[in-house]
Amino acid sequence: MSTRKLAFLSILLLLTLAATTTEAWAAGDEHSGHIKVANVLFTLVILLLAAKLGGELFERWNQPAVLGELVFGVVLGNLSLIGFSALDPIKTHAGIAFVAEIGVILLLFEVGLESNLDELLAVGSSAGIVAILGVVVPVALGYGVSYWFLPDSAWYVHIFVGATLAATSVGITARVLKDIGKMNTPEARIILGAAVVDDVLGLIILAVVSGLVTSIGADGSSEISLIPVLTIIAKAVGFLAVAVVAGRALAGKVLHLGSFARVAGMPIILTVSYCFVVAGIAEVMGLAPIVGAFAAGLVLDNAHYKGYASMRERNIEELLAPISTTLVPIFFVLMGLKVDLAAFGSSSVLQFAAVLSVAAIAGKQICSLGVVEKGLNRLVIGVGMIPRGEVGLIFAGIGASLFVAGEPVFSPETFSAIVVMVMVTTLATPPLLKALFRNSSK
Amino acid sequence: MSTRKLAFLSILLLLTLAATTTEAWAAGDEHSGHIKVANVLFTLVILLLAAKLGGELFERWNQPAVLGELVFGVVLGNLSLIGFSALDPIKTHAGIAFVAEIGVILLLFEVGLESNLDELLAVGSSAGIVAILGVVVPVALGYGVSYWFLPDSAWYVHIFVGATLAATSVGITARVLKDIGKMNTPEARIILGAAVVDDVLGLIILAVVSGLVTSIGADGSSEISLIPVLTIIAKAVGFLAVAVVAGRALAGKVLHLGSFARVAGMPIILTVSYCFVVAGIAEVMGLAPIVGAFAAGLVLDNAHYKGYASMRERNIEELLAPISTTLVPIFFVLMGLKVDLAAFGSSSVLQFAAVLSVAAIAGKQICSLGVVEKGLNRLVIGVGMIPRGEVGLIFAGIGASLFVAGEPVFSPETFSAIVVMVMVTTLATPPLLKALFRNSSK
Repeated sequence: MSTRKLAFLSILLLLTLAATTTEAWAAGDEHSGHIKVANVLFTLVILLLAAKLGGELFERWNQPAVLGELVFGVVLGNLSLIGFSALDPIKTHAGIAFVAEIGVILLLFEVGLESNLDELLAVGSSAGIVAILGVVVPVALGYGVSYWFLPDSAWYVHIFVGATLAATSVGITARVLKDIGKMNTPEARIILGAAVVDDVLGLIILAVVSGLVTSIGADGSSEISLIPVLTIIAKAVGFLAVAVVAGRALAGKVLHLGSFARVAGMPIILTVSYCFVVAGIAEVMGLAPIVGAFAAGLVLDNAHYKGYASMRERNIEELLAPISTTLVPIFFVLMGLKVDLAAFGSSSVLQFAAVLSVAAIAGKQICSLGVVEKGLNRLVIGVGMIPRGEVGLIFAGIGASLFVAGEPVFSPETFSAIVVMVMVTTLATPPLLKALFRNSSK
Repeated sequence: MSTRKLAFLSILLLLTLAATTTEAWAAGDEHSGHIKVANVLFTLVILLLAAKLGGELFERWNQPAVLGELVFGVVLGNLSLIGFSALDPIKTHAGIAFVAEIGVILLLFEVGLESNLDELLAVGSSAGIVAILGVVVPVALGYGVSYWFLPDSAWYVHIFVGATLAATSVGITARVLKDIGKMNTPEARIILGAAVVDDVLGLIILAVVSGLVTSIGADGSSEISLIPVLTIIAKAVGFLAVAVVAGRALAGKVLHLGSFARVAGMPIILTVSYCFVVAGIAEVMGLAPIVGAFAAGLVLDNAHYKGYASMRERNIEELLAPISTTLVPIFFVLMGLKVDLAAFGSSSVLQFAAVLSVAAIAGKQICSLGVVEKGLNRLVIGVGMIPRGEVGLIFAGIGASLFVAGEPVFSPETFSAIVVMVMVTTLATPPLLKALFRNSSK
């Protein structure tokens, strides 16, 4: 089928489904006696088809599929700009959000499965230095940019802007590396290791900055107590150590338990359960669930499944593939869907956003100076650290919801500029990363 | 591993997880700034492990796995009777309910995939007569039982009780037939065909009875207009005809579209999308989504996937298996979880429930007289029609929410008795069905 025909068909199909969904949401309001699942079913189908059509078109244009998923999400999410707002309930639907979250958890779990703990530890010092540089430099740059654009704002606004520039969202990079089959390069390992360290550092920064802001007194002075910050650090580092050390010892035993079972499906149920439990504990400990999912995948190995007769000819990646193929794209389309193009409407916001984006991208390039190994493609590592994604949005959201003397830390304009920066870094990474790997393999 | 050791381990593991979940729900309330998925993740793991442990224990006792899932659900759902109420939020969680609903939709879709339309049509007349007898006789019996136990109630209460006895829930029966590999028997085909017809008949009865009740005037008289009832019938029958005829013509074309794609995962995405769209349309047309899912599976065939290189060595059932193995048990555990054992506390409710259950079981046995083919195991068909499951509960819920002159049609006691009847029919069917098939194959 020609690409043009495919593009035309895509638009037609999506509009038809969008119209049907409108109908279903409306019908759902009428018959409240029924359990109404039709609207969510149609919504899932729209997200799935948008993901696959977007992915397909961008693959044909030699762009990464994940970029197509994001862009199709952006288009669907901004149809309200041309007067079609039937899809807006999707953005805030709790069930869809949960399905998407499971998608990204499974993605990082798969990435963990494909990674090897020893190889990851071998690049540990590089990953650590990359992560620290990738936090310190963007915070400093963010502070500077904020000071330049918002000269009348207080110091804590600048620090908070800097903090939103610090957090790396590894989902996008992991997805691109997985799609182009580069997960087993040392560059990929450094990025993944740095992303885990980054999450811990981001957590500490968020705790410190939020603590500072909420403790601001009437005289504008502020102080922070050390104990809560140290507790947060201990919980996060302790969780990672336990998840890896105890996980390595326990995962095999847990999976072995199910090998005596007569009922079918034990390998996949135990695997998914293990992933969910570790991801859940990570969140309880203050880290992102995806960090837990990655740690869970890291300690699991196909050797753990040898007790199962049904697993002699299959591996766990094959069993997970149908589930993750279905759920992972939902996460990326939904991420695109939440991008509000209206934020591009104001030129002052756009200028601030442009400079912030430059700072965000440049700040992470300095990371690559932290790589101690020789002969690696440092540009790939710097680019791989660029996406801010949902972590940046979470920081921005907290900034917009914290108030000092009746004023939010982030004004609506500052919030919009940060959202644009997140979009730019998220959308720029997949094509950059793909192009870099294509050049380096020549 | 010994069964006793397994049972002990099960209880230990579930209690630990239950305690962790309590922690997580509580933590979720504290940090409202975070997206909190940990509680739902832990909940899913509890449901998954309860399902597998319950299934495993019951398999070892030569009972169907689905009965173990239901019973473990009942146990988890009634821990509040011994003072442990941490799991109660699960019963009403919208996200979990949606995941369970997707589970039962995929189950009936798989059942449809395994069924053959021509073979189903070949037993069409039997299925039709079985369905009609299975509605008329239980309604009459239910009217009689209600008249006997509630002599002071109005006629519409009796009719509504009768209506709750009419609806068959095919999920349980389909699951048992699938588990014991009897899906391709003529008996199974008659049950499935009758269940589809039953859903249409149940819809008509619900419309007529609700219409009668809501039109009751101050003088106690009531009338119903024909047009809305005819519209409902036309929509339901029209949907089924279109889903099968148009579906047969279109399904292959839709799947073929994706075979040109370069991105991975097209077969599973298109298949799931097709299933969801047809299930969603079924619900919009007033039928149960599972009827749509069954119709969707019925017209799909492995031949439709031959355009995909990736599908040369796999079939669609293999791709669906990891998804359905994970989601289907969640539906059955959740169904058990919603059983309120407190309803067994009142002896007057229990007596009413006992006689209702006898009527419910006896009423469906007369179905088997409708089988025109010779040499079939009629008892299997009668027993296969017994479960009332969630359809009976939906009817009971509507009865409890309809008011005539300020009084609900179903008093709390009547509602409880119906819930007990639904539980009895649901729990009795799996062991009966398994035993019948075991005897007939001797």
